[in-house]
Amino acid sequence: MDTLYMKRALELAKYGIGYTNPNPLVGAVIVKNNRIIGEGYHRRYGEPHAEINAFLNATEDVVGATMYVTLEPCSHFGKTPPCANAIVQKGIKKVVIAMKDPNPLVSGDGIQILKNHGIEVVTDVLEEEAKKLNEVFIKYITTKKPFCILKTAMTLDGKIATFTGDSKWISNESSRKYVHKLRHAVSGIMVGIGTIISDDPLLTTRLEDIKGLNPTRIIVDTHGKIPLNSKVLKTCKNVQTIIATTELADTKKLKSIEKMGAEILITPIKEGKVDLSSLMTALGEKKIDSILLEGGSTLNYSALNEGIVDKVISFIAPKIIGGHTAKTPVGGEGRMYMKDAILLKNIKVSYFKNDIMIEAYLRKTNYKKSIVKKKKF
Amino acid sequence: MDTLYMKRALELAKYGIGYTNPNPLVGAVIVKNNRIIGEGYHRRYGEPHAEINAFLNATEDVVGATMYVTLEPCSHFGKTPPCANAIVQKGIKKVVIAMKDPNPLVSGDGIQILKNHGIEVVTDVLEEEAKKLNEVFIKYITTKKPFCILKTAMTLDGKIATFTGDSKWISNESSRKYVHKLRHAVSGIMVGIGTIISDDPLLTTRLEDIKGLNPTRIIVDTHGKIPLNSKVLKTCKNVQTIIATTELADTKKLKSIEKMGAEILITPIKEGKVDLSSLMTALGEKKIDSILLEGGSTLNYSALNEGIVDKVISFIAPKIIGGHTAKTPVGGEGRMYMKDAILLKNIKVSYFKNDIMIEAYLRKTNYKKSIVKKKKF
Repeated sequence: MDTLYMKRALELAKYGIGYTNPNPLVGAVIVKNNRIIGEGYHRRYGEPHAEINAFLNATEDVVGATMYVTLEPCSHFGKTPPCANAIVQKGIKKVVIAMKDPNPLVSGDGIQILKNHGIEVVTDVLEEEAKKLNEVFIKYITTKKPFCILKTAMTLDGKIATFTGDSKWISNESSRKYVHKLRHAVSGIMVGIGTIISDDPLLTTRLEDIKGLNPTRIIVDTHGKIPLNSKVLKTCKNVQTIIATTELADTKKLKSIEKMGAEILITPIKEGKVDLSSLMTALGEKKIDSILLEGGSTLNYSALNEGIVDKVISFIAPKIIGGHTAKTPVGGEGRMYMKDAILLKNIKVSYFKNDIMIEAYLRKTNYKKSIVKKKKF
Repeated sequence: MDTLYMKRALELAKYGIGYTNPNPLVGAVIVKNNRIIGEGYHRRYGEPHAEINAFLNATEDVVGATMYVTLEPCSHFGKTPPCANAIVQKGIKKVVIAMKDPNPLVSGDGIQILKNHGIEVVTDVLEEEAKKLNEVFIKYITTKKPFCILKTAMTLDGKIATFTGDSKWISNESSRKYVHKLRHAVSGIMVGIGTIISDDPLLTTRLEDIKGLNPTRIIVDTHGKIPLNSKVLKTCKNVQTIIATTELADTKKLKSIEKMGAEILITPIKEGKVDLSSLMTALGEKKIDSILLEGGSTLNYSALNEGIVDKVISFIAPKIIGGHTAKTPVGGEGRMYMKDAILLKNIKVSYFKNDIMIEAYLRKTNYKKSIVKKKKF
């Protein structure tokens, strides 16, 4: 029964996708006499936690009940008072927890409070599922850098466009809809200046069933080449936009961009380009806990090479276009030998009609430290 | 019960893989009083058909029994007498057939013989499975051209080698073993001269558990550039080898090649190259019913463009190597627009440990007719 109620709590947690960042996704279920008497989830950053919402929704007296919660109840005063204390006060008898708090500074503290008050605590129930659900939170809370998902779409012969640059469309409608769900779920979306110049995308979230949330748009633009009439800049009063650039960019142009409503982020230069690792630190400081990298061939390689990518989502369409000059998902200089290949693990395959989606995680990630300074004008 | 016995017959048929070409794979089961009393399959081209082997293996009198056979019993005198007549003579009461003979000239004739002799006939039992099993035979018997499987192996970013040309290894050992099973199953293996020059492969079948059969090696070599000391030529006394070339090749060189033991096939020239469609006709005439195309980027595109490919088997390794000049599975000129993409259908995904194998069939194939002449010296 433990796993059954925990499954429900995990389901509830998912309702928060896109709204809780940089907080975790959490669901809670209160059970008494083998019946669910209260359910809750963390709805939105700054609002009550899952446990509190479950209490608010309880249809009966919760004294003596068992609570199932997907994450260790918090022990600290943040935007809201600690949930562990609330659980004690409400007279809960037993707490079943999927995973401990991944924050090493507070991990176990919530459980200790419960135990100190004689509450029975069971942990690690559906732990793996809970960790998967909160992969973004785990990365962010432990590294202060965003969880970066590299998303690509290619033909079965490895192309992201024909040799003429035509890419409409590689993947089918159903895959493209899912990409908008991914955009809704993350707090940042990142592309290179090449993509802005060639495709002039809006980079917003368009969903049919719900009003999707727009992630902060991050344009990697070493030389500040972004056209002032690009869709991204023309809409940056309404959708948060960051131009990640370097001192190689023209200060006057950057001032104009800033006036239009975009934020300028100056990073150190690494090999003549925006230092992506420093950029991640800076974005983390801005509470961007997750990034969907929809880069072109060149940015994608830099990102992988710099070790900022955590996960790859690759759509493969059952189409072949050929072309020895057609672009592939990952370009750049490339690795010299197969033995130096960037390795992936935990491969998962899903289907969007005839398209195949491969999800995989990077085997090795090296996060390098460097400093980002905000340029003042 | 019908499908249960037919499944067994299909299983038996598979024991013939690699040995029956250009004949079909056929299995037969004789059932009496709900017990299997005889089993057989077509073991090898020129040897008895499945039905006859089932009779030979029968442990009881087959009079009044039911026969399950994966393909309509033959009605003609070929290398062996017609099976339909044998079934009648043996006193079989009922025949259950998975699929009719795909050869339009004789389809239905075997069934007619059975019916004329008062035998009950049931057809189309596990028809789809039987058609899948004999996709090679169906193509070959109806078009007289080989069923061509394009096999590629790429990284998750669409590369078949690093920018330096290193390709050892893209796919894992388990995938590579499967490729040798594919080689065993087909009657021809085809590569371009580029592959011979850069990799100098042996193109033989190496299997651990069984002595694999070597398919005929077909080298597409428009200008007759094949090095006389290549592994393929050095072994062509033992392994059948065809050099598909054109009048652009040097006659003297071709003579030397022929003396070494390889066969020379001169095809018309199409856009400065071997006319692949004509080549398929010529290979079909040589009873090559199936080809595994392990071409490089350029030959693969030509093959797809000429419409000679029936099926694609693509291995995808969970590795990323990048490189904007690294080769992809299909190069050549390429299609200008996505709307002109070569489309695939019936996608199937399998796994070889961490590698993903995608099988798919070409949506459209245009087989063009032209003439191939054998050059005489």
